[in-house]
Amino acid sequence: MNPETEAIFALHHGGKIEIRPTVLVDDLATLSMAYTPGVADVCLAIAADPQLVDQYTWRPNLVAVVTDGTAVLGLGDIGPQAALPVMEGKALLFKNFGGVNAVPIVLGTTDVDEIVATVIAIAPGFGGINLEDISAPRCFEVERRLQAALDIPVFHDDQHGTAIVVLAALKNAARLTDRDLGDLRVVMLGAGAAGAAVTGLLLTAGVGDVTVVDRGGIVSRDRANLTPTKAALAAITNRAGLSGGLRDAMSGADVFVGVSTAQVAEADVALLAPGAFIFSLANPDPEIDPAVARRYASVVATGRSDHPNQINNVLAFPGVFRGALDVRATTVTEGMQLAAAQAIADVVGDELSADLVIPSAFDARVAPAVAQAVAEVAIAEGVVRLAAATPH
Amino acid sequence: MNPETEAIFALHHGGKIEIRPTVLVDDLATLSMAYTPGVADVCLAIAADPQLVDQYTWRPNLVAVVTDGTAVLGLGDIGPQAALPVMEGKALLFKNFGGVNAVPIVLGTTDVDEIVATVIAIAPGFGGINLEDISAPRCFEVERRLQAALDIPVFHDDQHGTAIVVLAALKNAARLTDRDLGDLRVVMLGAGAAGAAVTGLLLTAGVGDVTVVDRGGIVSRDRANLTPTKAALAAITNRAGLSGGLRDAMSGADVFVGVSTAQVAEADVALLAPGAFIFSLANPDPEIDPAVARRYASVVATGRSDHPNQINNVLAFPGVFRGALDVRATTVTEGMQLAAAQAIADVVGDELSADLVIPSAFDARVAPAVAQAVAEVAIAEGVVRLAAATPH
Repeated sequence: MNPETEAIFALHHGGKIEIRPTVLVDDLATLSMAYTPGVADVCLAIAADPQLVDQYTWRPNLVAVVTDGTAVLGLGDIGPQAALPVMEGKALLFKNFGGVNAVPIVLGTTDVDEIVATVIAIAPGFGGINLEDISAPRCFEVERRLQAALDIPVFHDDQHGTAIVVLAALKNAARLTDRDLGDLRVVMLGAGAAGAAVTGLLLTAGVGDVTVVDRGGIVSRDRANLTPTKAALAAITNRAGLSGGLRDAMSGADVFVGVSTAQVAEADVALLAPGAFIFSLANPDPEIDPAVARRYASVVATGRSDHPNQINNVLAFPGVFRGALDVRATTVTEGMQLAAAQAIADVVGDELSADLVIPSAFDARVAPAVAQAVAEVAIAEGVVRLAAATPH
Repeated sequence: MNPETEAIFALHHGGKIEIRPTVLVDDLATLSMAYTPGVADVCLAIAADPQLVDQYTWRPNLVAVVTDGTAVLGLGDIGPQAALPVMEGKALLFKNFGGVNAVPIVLGTTDVDEIVATVIAIAPGFGGINLEDISAPRCFEVERRLQAALDIPVFHDDQHGTAIVVLAALKNAARLTDRDLGDLRVVMLGAGAAGAAVTGLLLTAGVGDVTVVDRGGIVSRDRANLTPTKAALAAITNRAGLSGGLRDAMSGADVFVGVSTAQVAEADVALLAPGAFIFSLANPDPEIDPAVARRYASVVATGRSDHPNQINNVLAFPGVFRGALDVRATTVTEGMQLAAAQAIADVVGDELSADLVIPSAFDARVAPAVAQAVAEVAIAEGVVRLAAATPH
């Protein structure tokens, strides 16, 4: 084990999060207030007025980070316990960046019905559900059914967190180069959870066209045997009516977004339109090597922390949940996602450059800006629970 | 609202527990170790060797405090969200007294099959399951089925925590008065979760006889229409062959244990044998008023913090789980419960008096002593997972 790897394991020893009391209980008097018999008054008050659960428990600031371990990072189906370090890391980031308490819930089942039933059963104790690293296409059904059943936000971060940050970067790249989103054609390499969600949000934001490419080539209405998700993608994408493979999609495209595990040859990169944007999110090996990308693109972004313009979900999820929880939002709408993307993009402001189309993951201005934008849209759209629609 | 009640609500504002990172992540270097890409090394290591989950995650020191809100304190079926303040209090005590991380899981179902399925589904992320405030008789089946399905400890505190502390107090009361457990007949008022478990543990510990009394009178083999739980109780109790009501049970009994919500008249208390022990655990109103009890008994204990000899589960559960988790126990056997009771009793040592048969809830010696005793018995009985049978 090299020293760097040793340091990683040392950091993980014993886990990365803990439960801490927020009140001091050090004598019988405080014990009898925090626990029986005093706590009974609080229980009875909530039983009489269920909304009080948001005042006298940790629930309103608590998110479950739920996974079945089937699509962990780029590692695939490694199971729930091997996924736990990622979920703890997520919980750590939720607290550090958003002040949100988050508890990893790793599930011993990959059955959609069982996942949905389990999350619904434990939902009374949580203010929000962050789905994580659940493989496509099951993740779409899980999210849809849970959001339909629950009056708290259900947010699959691999989908929507990624979409929000990609859109933020794209908005700033367009601003930098004086382009209009409506004039851009995007090649989306990858049609999994992230590919589908990024495509949807870009189109909602006004991007001119998206050409989605998966292992079978361009996703188009003409292709046989499309899954329901890809058929839905085909219906809203590829306005250019392209067919064929990646080369055909790349040719003349204005933006490349990679959310896959593929590698793209330089000859294909060279087919992009002059001044293109290349967002290569595969980690640790971007689909297009950044050095190659820079030869052909005006803006290059990756998922890596050691290159400029890191597309990092931590720019989105802490602020999205902070804002949603603050106003007791019942869901995270596309409007809230668009607002989050704009807020992230706006933080860059006058510092905008080819190497700074997206803020640093440690830019402390991001989460509060995202939270405020998300909260305002939630209120404006009326997707908040009664009597709590005021940010605190 | 009086000032005391106001103080209770103020203490509960925003909840009583939080998630805290245990590692500092304040730059891109540490972020890339605690989260992607560095965390992938740890995930892959656990995927290759599942036992490493106990080294590199918070799981081995994490307990789920699970309730369906059906039997909360003495308040009854108030639902999962109204139960949350109790579960947060429990989590607070787990950390304060045992150093154990505990997360409240409050369930939106009271169906046994659904409770069992839900807990099994989330179990991969937890090192133990503390069942709490689930009403009888469902609690018995829930615990039995979960323990059969899982290789982590499943412990219904209302049953076994209470039993352990009652037995500890009884042992010391017997020592104080130079009595032998085998010579004692106990009246158990209440045949719910606590009544059944306390009865079972006292008999296992060698108590001579227990007469269980419920709303229908003495639980005996002659009674018609007994539930399965009560039929099982009838089969092991009432060796004296008594029948009738509470008066008949009290007459000449050596020990009264109240785990009910009833009130006992002084005339009935007067029927106890001279020098009896009275443990009246109903909260906040003991079945027998302590002032009355003292007229007839040599030792009086209650569930209240404002009287001597408080029978408080906090003396048991933090140490029981601390010990069980330390050696990766797969269950909490009766042997481990007996050892826990003895450890609690032993802490009193030479300080033993009629007003000190059980240590204070804040006696810092208790939890470590219980943990060590529980761990030793778990190892001796071989109910530990491989390669982890060493207390740390």
